[in-house]
Amino acid sequence: MKKRDILTPIGIALGATMILVGIYFNSGMDGFTTFLQLSSFIIVLGGLTGALLINFNPAEMKLIGKVFKEAFSKSDHNLKELIQLFIHLSEKARREGLLALESELEELDDEFIKKGVYLAIDGIEPEVINDIMNAEITAMEERHNKGRSIIEKAGEYAPSWGMIGTLIGLVLMLNNLTSPETIGPSMAVALLTTFYGMVLANLVFIPIAGKLYNMTEEEVFMKQVIIEGVIGVQSGQNPKILEEKLSAFLPNEELKDTEEPEEEVIGETANES
Amino acid sequence: MKKRDILTPIGIALGATMILVGIYFNSGMDGFTTFLQLSSFIIVLGGLTGALLINFNPAEMKLIGKVFKEAFSKSDHNLKELIQLFIHLSEKARREGLLALESELEELDDEFIKKGVYLAIDGIEPEVINDIMNAEITAMEERHNKGRSIIEKAGEYAPSWGMIGTLIGLVLMLNNLTSPETIGPSMAVALLTTFYGMVLANLVFIPIAGKLYNMTEEEVFMKQVIIEGVIGVQSGQNPKILEEKLSAFLPNEELKDTEEPEEEVIGETANES
Amino acid sequence: MKKRDILTPIGIALGATMILVGIYFNSGMDGFTTFLQLSSFIIVLGGLTGALLINFNPAEMKLIGKVFKEAFSKSDHNLKELIQLFIHLSEKARREGLLALESELEELDDEFIKKGVYLAIDGIEPEVINDIMNAEITAMEERHNKGRSIIEKAGEYAPSWGMIGTLIGLVLMLNNLTSPETIGPSMAVALLTTFYGMVLANLVFIPIAGKLYNMTEEEVFMKQVIIEGVIGVQSGQNPKILEEKLSAFLPNEELKDTEEPEEEVIGETANES
Amino acid sequence: MKKRDILTPIGIALGATMILVGIYFNSGMDGFTTFLQLSSFIIVLGGLTGALLINFNPAEMKLIGKVFKEAFSKSDHNLKELIQLFIHLSEKARREGLLALESELEELDDEFIKKGVYLAIDGIEPEVINDIMNAEITAMEERHNKGRSIIEKAGEYAPSWGMIGTLIGLVLMLNNLTSPETIGPSMAVALLTTFYGMVLANLVFIPIAGKLYNMTEEEVFMKQVIIEGVIGVQSGQNPKILEEKLSAFLPNEELKDTEEPEEEVIGETANES
Amino acid sequence: MKKRDILTPIGIALGATMILVGIYFNSGMDGFTTFLQLSSFIIVLGGLTGALLINFNPAEMKLIGKVFKEAFSKSDHNLKELIQLFIHLSEKARREGLLALESELEELDDEFIKKGVYLAIDGIEPEVINDIMNAEITAMEERHNKGRSIIEKAGEYAPSWGMIGTLIGLVLMLNNLTSPETIGPSMAVALLTTFYGMVLANLVFIPIAGKLYNMTEEEVFMKQVIIEGVIGVQSGQNPKILEEKLSAFLPNEELKDTEEPEEEVIGETANES
Repeated sequence: MKKRDILTPIGIALGATMILVGIYFNSGMDGFTTFLQLSSFIIVLGGLTGALLINFNPAEMKLIGKVFKEAFSKSDHNLKELIQLFIHLSEKARREGLLALESELEELDDEFIKKGVYLAIDGIEPEVINDIMNAEITAMEERHNKGRSIIEKAGEYAPSWGMIGTLIGLVLMLNNLTSPETIGPSMAVALLTTFYGMVLANLVFIPIAGKLYNMTEEEVFMKQVIIEGVIGVQSGQNPKILEEKLSAFLPNEELKDTEEPEEEVIGETANES
Repeated sequence: MKKRDILTPIGIALGATMILVGIYFNSGMDGFTTFLQLSSFIIVLGGLTGALLINFNPAEMKLIGKVFKEAFSKSDHNLKELIQLFIHLSEKARREGLLALESELEELDDEFIKKGVYLAIDGIEPEVINDIMNAEITAMEERHNKGRSIIEKAGEYAPSWGMIGTLIGLVLMLNNLTSPETIGPSMAVALLTTFYGMVLANLVFIPIAGKLYNMTEEEVFMKQVIIEGVIGVQSGQNPKILEEKLSAFLPNEELKDTEEPEEEVIGETANES
Repeated sequence: MKKRDILTPIGIALGATMILVGIYFNSGMDGFTTFLQLSSFIIVLGGLTGALLINFNPAEMKLIGKVFKEAFSKSDHNLKELIQLFIHLSEKARREGLLALESELEELDDEFIKKGVYLAIDGIEPEVINDIMNAEITAMEERHNKGRSIIEKAGEYAPSWGMIGTLIGLVLMLNNLTSPETIGPSMAVALLTTFYGMVLANLVFIPIAGKLYNMTEEEVFMKQVIIEGVIGVQSGQNPKILEEKLSAFLPNEELKDTEEPEEEVIGETANES
Repeated sequence: MKKRDILTPIGIALGATMILVGIYFNSGMDGFTTFLQLSSFIIVLGGLTGALLINFNPAEMKLIGKVFKEAFSKSDHNLKELIQLFIHLSEKARREGLLALESELEELDDEFIKKGVYLAIDGIEPEVINDIMNAEITAMEERHNKGRSIIEKAGEYAPSWGMIGTLIGLVLMLNNLTSPETIGPSMAVALLTTFYGMVLANLVFIPIAGKLYNMTEEEVFMKQVIIEGVIGVQSGQNPKILEEKLSAFLPNEELKDTEEPEEEVIGETANES
Repeated sequence: MKKRDILTPIGIALGATMILVGIYFNSGMDGFTTFLQLSSFIIVLGGLTGALLINFNPAEMKLIGKVFKEAFSKSDHNLKELIQLFIHLSEKARREGLLALESELEELDDEFIKKGVYLAIDGIEPEVINDIMNAEITAMEERHNKGRSIIEKAGEYAPSWGMIGTLIGLVLMLNNLTSPETIGPSMAVALLTTFYGMVLANLVFIPIAGKLYNMTEEEVFMKQVIIEGVIGVQSGQNPKILEEKLSAFLPNEELKDTEEPEEEVIGETANES
């Protein structure tokens, strides 16, 4: 259900390039070495990791890897394909009965649709299907919120730990002003931690947290369409009416802009049946 | 339904002029060249674009152009014309029946009113019309919120990336204090990215996000009046009572201040019938 | 219904005096001229006006003057007079019938009470009166919120534009460090825009937005008392019970602290009847 | 019902001592005079008073004194005494009838309990008692919120006006750099207003606003227990059951930690009966 | 029910190590002494304690110790063990009757489960059990919120008091610029209080407050599962159905990832019966 997302690495690369451009235009190639200060980077990353270890329990910390992987993928849910799928299921159910959908189940690779169709075949009442599937959406939302909150917290701790690192550098430099010619480079190093904290926050954590939020919203939306579709299929609704009902979820623009791909999709799903 | 808005370009021009005035009063014409630093501008704009590319998916990013175009237009919804239109429709429906409204439909250029009148002619029950049209309002609100959130995020990233650019400049300058006479100009260039970030945020992104919010609110309000009007027309309500009911949406001031234009509007709509 | 408010000009005068005192204690009379820098003031005011022009449409911008006038007035609603008025109306209605209230109408100068009494005389049912008058309260609140939001936004833009002005000054000064003796005065002028922005926000926009919020809250409260009163009068409630019911809106302190003025008010209203 | 609170003055004294300690460790006794700068203090206090005068109307401003007095007192509500009181009232009411509670009324010094018992004796129905007393709680909350909002606003204005004062000092100093030896002391004086603003906010206004919030929450909680008690007494509930019901309001810890004082309280109340 | 949590001390140690690393890489071993400035630390800690003493009453202040102890522990609630426990109880209740559960009670060390089972044995109706136990959850949440709010406030006061300490140092240094060679060290000492404030906030208070929030959320969740379980046991639900119902609380991942431990748990609980 997830494809590699190309925009996230492009965005990070673009931001990183902008920083390199900024350095290059200021000081040429010589400037780059100034910004490679491993110890400064370690302070920011280590400090915020320490804060996160306190803030979240081990089970939650294990989510970080998963959450980052998520940020580099994109959901390939396609609202139109989904609608066509339900029209196809609805036609089949009307022609051959709900039980005939069982043969379609293995071709479905979305667990949520599968579960819904199973429930429909089992003859569970629509209100119960609605309750069960909505409970799963809520559980998914809470799980995603938990994962996202780690990234959000990291975005808050990063600039603070950057400032802590800068304060360390400033205090040490000010305490030892004997050689005036070292003041500048010392302050430069001190400011580097603030720089790392700001870049981590504004190029990694805050945008990724924003992306995860949007992805959760979209997934909730798609799952709600699925619930509508499953209930429509079970109740033996006319495929035409079901299509109209589900198409109400499409934004107006999408209806016009992508006329052709829609046709394509219909053909594709038609071939499947 | 949208006209070119003159206030947005005036506002941006006024803000830009103020900046030029500030530069001119400080340093005369010579000062302007100091502020033309393409690399600084590129860092801020590129950095925030990178962050936005991570934060939003391609479909959402495509909204940016649309959203900016929106910001330079204004809705020419006119509450009084709208009320007159529904009085006219109501009179016609009472005289000649709901089906007679079909001939009026092509003269309407608002898709939302058209859809409402179609539903009314089709004899859909009022509660269903209310539900369908309110669902469309909610969908519109969510679509607008999504578009606006890109501009809002840009307004948050701009000053942060301005500060990142300034930190780059400061670190490089401090690291290379050999020639004291270059300290000043180096710091000036470093501060320019913060300047660009602040101007982008406070003259472009934040005000435009505010404008889009107000426009959405206004559109929701107008569409709610339309729902009231459609239901009133369908139920065969007395045009006088419908007018009073819809006029309750007008603020008191508007009732008094613009007595004449109202008359004008009535005449205009009367001609149409 | 509105009287000139003396506290707003006193507050602004006090704040302005504090600034003058601060300047005087620092540098004597000579200091004042330093702070009169028309160009700095123009940048802050012009920049925030530009941002507001983008943010709000012409109809909303026209509210500014009205809203400022509002800020220098105070509502002279008097809860006790209001209660006495409704006791008087209630007595008259019981003695001579609801229609007898028509003669009282021209003596009322509050449009909201007038409207309520008209509705009562017309024999509209209490729930409908309640709905109509509450809808008017909601509309008033939204109108006030719109007006106040302009002032609130101005309070947010002012310090930002002050900082933009300071950045302009700093960049120009740093770029031209040839004459060291001008560094100080140049930085002084640069800081002036931040100073203007902070003063505008903290002495004008934020306090006035706070005042407008409090005034709206109070007006909503008074109008809710009026609705209670109108419905009590219409239902022919015993004036004693109506008094007790409406007195529940009075805070305990007010019941004790202002025993005498209350008597006075009763006398006054008694004379009217 | 209110006792002098010792923690507030101790807290302020502790904070003030810390400041003195900080000054003493830096510069010995000589340092103290540096911080006594009446004009700086006047600017901050005067400026924020000006802002408050605009923000609040005279009736609200009069609350300040009251609110500050409140901050130096503490509620001596004792949940256990309260429960014992209602058990005692409940026993008496069951033995001698509700009317017998009239003789207890003058011994009660809490107006809210008194009012509740009066309503119970008068035979008002439980739902009405509940409504009336809850309305009084809501009114109290709103009154407290209004008073607290003045302190909260003062906590926001104080640092801003401190910064305005510092900007005044900096502008004047920078404008007059003729004698380098006065730069340091001038900047010191300039920073003093920021210092005063920060101390006022973080030692006085913000903590006191926090305390007032907690006090209001506690008072609402106690009053809700009182409502439960009054209704239980009126309905002739078994004192044992009433005790169990009211004890549910006690946190678990309190049940264990303070076993003895509870016994003491029972004895005390028993003597009263 | 609580075990020592190893992540919190690890997190604090990691953050502290990062600070030491930062100091060491800047100035070697000599740098450490610079940061040991007892008076600076006392100002920050004393100042924020003063503010907290005003903000919270004695009963609330006593919670601090408890709350900190909580932060170093972790709940060892295990959702799977819990589900197995209720399956076991459900089986026993169906075989031997609800009263047979009494013998199981002493083996339970969770007061909340015990209370629930007692209520079930006593034959209280399910809705009442639900009400009583939910009221206890709400009370627990409020108690936890109160405790956490002290830590949150400390996290807000710490950086502010750090800045107050820095202002004290700066004012004194600027006022006494006679010996230029002491400027650096004096500023270093002044900045130390800001450093302490930032570290206290970002390594101790804010992460611990975050942890406490997560712990409360988790505890509320576990207790809601317990309520479901108790009611299921009492209603004599089929153990299989109860298992399915309670398993719905498990996230999908947990169902797959930890297949074996689940088996283990089942064996373990089976041994108990």
